[in-house]
Amino acid sequence: MLTEMKREQLTEFYTECEKEYESYKSLNLKLDMSRGKPGADQLDITMPIMDILISPGDMIASDGSDTRNYGLLTGIPEARELFGGLLGCKADEIIIGGNSSLSLMYDSVSRAMSHGVLGSERPWNKEEKVKFLCPVPGYDRHFAVCEHFGIEMITVPMKSDGPDMDEVERLVSEDAQIKGIWCVPLYSNPEGIVYSDEAVRRFANLSPKAPDFRIFWDNAYCVHHLTDKPHRILNILEECKKAGKADMVYIFASSSKISFPGAGVAVLAASAENIKAVTAHLAIQTICFDKVNQLRHVKFFMNTDGIKSHMEKHRAILAPKFRTVLDILDNQLSEFGILEWNKPDGGYFISVNTLSGCAKRVVSLCKEAGVIMTSAGATFPYGNDPEDRNIRIAPTFPPLDELKTAMNLFCLCVKLASAEKLIHNS
Amino acid sequence: MLTEMKREQLTEFYTECEKEYESYKSLNLKLDMSRGKPGADQLDITMPIMDILISPGDMIASDGSDTRNYGLLTGIPEARELFGGLLGCKADEIIIGGNSSLSLMYDSVSRAMSHGVLGSERPWNKEEKVKFLCPVPGYDRHFAVCEHFGIEMITVPMKSDGPDMDEVERLVSEDAQIKGIWCVPLYSNPEGIVYSDEAVRRFANLSPKAPDFRIFWDNAYCVHHLTDKPHRILNILEECKKAGKADMVYIFASSSKISFPGAGVAVLAASAENIKAVTAHLAIQTICFDKVNQLRHVKFFMNTDGIKSHMEKHRAILAPKFRTVLDILDNQLSEFGILEWNKPDGGYFISVNTLSGCAKRVVSLCKEAGVIMTSAGATFPYGNDPEDRNIRIAPTFPPLDELKTAMNLFCLCVKLASAEKLIHNS
Repeated sequence: MLTEMKREQLTEFYTECEKEYESYKSLNLKLDMSRGKPGADQLDITMPIMDILISPGDMIASDGSDTRNYGLLTGIPEARELFGGLLGCKADEIIIGGNSSLSLMYDSVSRAMSHGVLGSERPWNKEEKVKFLCPVPGYDRHFAVCEHFGIEMITVPMKSDGPDMDEVERLVSEDAQIKGIWCVPLYSNPEGIVYSDEAVRRFANLSPKAPDFRIFWDNAYCVHHLTDKPHRILNILEECKKAGKADMVYIFASSSKISFPGAGVAVLAASAENIKAVTAHLAIQTICFDKVNQLRHVKFFMNTDGIKSHMEKHRAILAPKFRTVLDILDNQLSEFGILEWNKPDGGYFISVNTLSGCAKRVVSLCKEAGVIMTSAGATFPYGNDPEDRNIRIAPTFPPLDELKTAMNLFCLCVKLASAEKLIHNS
Repeated sequence: MLTEMKREQLTEFYTECEKEYESYKSLNLKLDMSRGKPGADQLDITMPIMDILISPGDMIASDGSDTRNYGLLTGIPEARELFGGLLGCKADEIIIGGNSSLSLMYDSVSRAMSHGVLGSERPWNKEEKVKFLCPVPGYDRHFAVCEHFGIEMITVPMKSDGPDMDEVERLVSEDAQIKGIWCVPLYSNPEGIVYSDEAVRRFANLSPKAPDFRIFWDNAYCVHHLTDKPHRILNILEECKKAGKADMVYIFASSSKISFPGAGVAVLAASAENIKAVTAHLAIQTICFDKVNQLRHVKFFMNTDGIKSHMEKHRAILAPKFRTVLDILDNQLSEFGILEWNKPDGGYFISVNTLSGCAKRVVSLCKEAGVIMTSAGATFPYGNDPEDRNIRIAPTFPPLDELKTAMNLFCLCVKLASAEKLIHNS
């Protein structure tokens, strides 16, 4: 345990690490572990999607409409059915969007600000203040949307089975300015936490003071398992219906990490009433999304099983990368007591916690040696991790050999930063 | 001339028309002339675009980035260059969006409302009132965006070479609440009017009282010529630069009516400073647009000449349809003095003006006999054509034989509605 070493030992430890660090620097590395991007080999497994639609006859949707032309604002029927099936929703509870679920989330917040949502007494931007609950650590792009619209973010701690629901229940029932909460319920970003059935049920039974409160349920990793025993979460829309609160949730998903990040299709699922209300606004914004790409996806995946077996191919590439990261962390750091980490069964990230006050320093040491990590603090609203401990590791993009190099360097930087801190405090 | 007939003659004329109308009704027609949709034969000429990108090696952009993955928010370099070239702009004056220029326009207004534009003193939604100038007749979807955001619309009459610029200059210089104007400068929707060089220069030299006034320059029909002598308009961004007002214009275009309406690419062009400001907001909204589709378009069209020669194929299909409509109008109505129409050299519409107070009745008679026209009034803000005269004819979608039937019926309905009115007034 590094924390139990005396100053002399620590200094020796530090000096040795520093030598090793200098030799890393001489390698002139240029590695990027900052974002949850699929690797090129993952993209290749979707390539057969590219020559499915070739002749005019291929382009017709199941209702006879021509996907090349204008129309069908909410998506082609077979795409609504496919992704509805995946999320356990009916076709009329689905809007198929463009290539970005982030865009659907942004638009949902933007519309709520300018016009309100179904059941709003007024547009959110006419409220004195709007607040969102943000379970932490969480996804930086969710927080950025809130910050962009001046929505105040209140953090809620994550527990091992979802957000601290006592806290969530208390806050939403007391404060009418709290209009929403961000959730990544399955394999959360970054910790890979799976919401328990109890947590989902407590979400569905929330009694918010705001009549137009919305759960932003970002089911980004709904089929992104890393083991052969996929976790399941309860269907939030079903649970909300049971609780008589069908309109309280917006569900988001996309094929970004199923097919192509830049050229997939995104999905908004919600009660049919919510979908009707959103569609009325959407009709002003666009004539239709890219239905050719929707049809391409349906013809490639066919059905839910098609998506699931496709995800097995992703798993075959990703599981070894996650194992590599975990093995390296285990081998190099377990004896020192200077880093905690999770072992996710799905999703795109491994979340680690350093000793207090070390995360920024670790990321900066990595950067200096040519390895870009997600910024420390990014997993907290306003980029502010109060204890400066959390770092999100994204193991998916680099090839395995680069990943090993990057992780070895990362462990070294954790040792350096921890030793620095302990020496300083000793 | 119907207007000179006596009551008796009119009644006889009306009775004959009515008989003919009844026989049309017995045909149970179901034709849609309401929107500017390309016909299926037009969509077929772009089909070779569908098998250009097949193997992983095809998917790499000119800067080495993988179009399948995340990134390149403003578009792949070669797409920015291609569409920049088409619009006479540099690559850094271009953002390539998703499949919808309407969406880029909506987003631009939405962002201006919530955050303002470059040079705004405050978000537009913090102003007491925001107004837009709307040359009329104009495009209903432009007006719908304004109405959606509570922007008051002030109509400005169109002249034969663009909007009444005396009126535009006077209004924008007097009223700081006027923040924008909608323009379709080449083959305007619906009249097919081409803005003269003088009109474009006067636009570029506007001195609006609002420091953050924007010209929304929807160059929807930039290469959509119907004759072999394409009209040219001056480059508004260049003219604005000359006038020292580079930031005053947002230019929009898309390949919707070049490649596929549902699966094209849309473009925002503006000063590099405007593009930077927009991109900063866009970074919150999405990670990237569909770059695979961007690359598909670049590889298909290659360059500006590629687009232009492709548009010749569209012209070969469209010109006969426009000629058919104009011939039928000419043959059936010119002797009666009850309809005026334009003869556009490009674009997607023919605009007609009935006798005062007859447009709604004509559209309703058409509908009763199974032919859907664009709603009368749609070409005016709030759907309110004060004289109830203007109807937009969209000849592109129906096959030629259906178009003939629909137009014959339309002419009959014009006769009926006009005779009704004249009998009523006699």
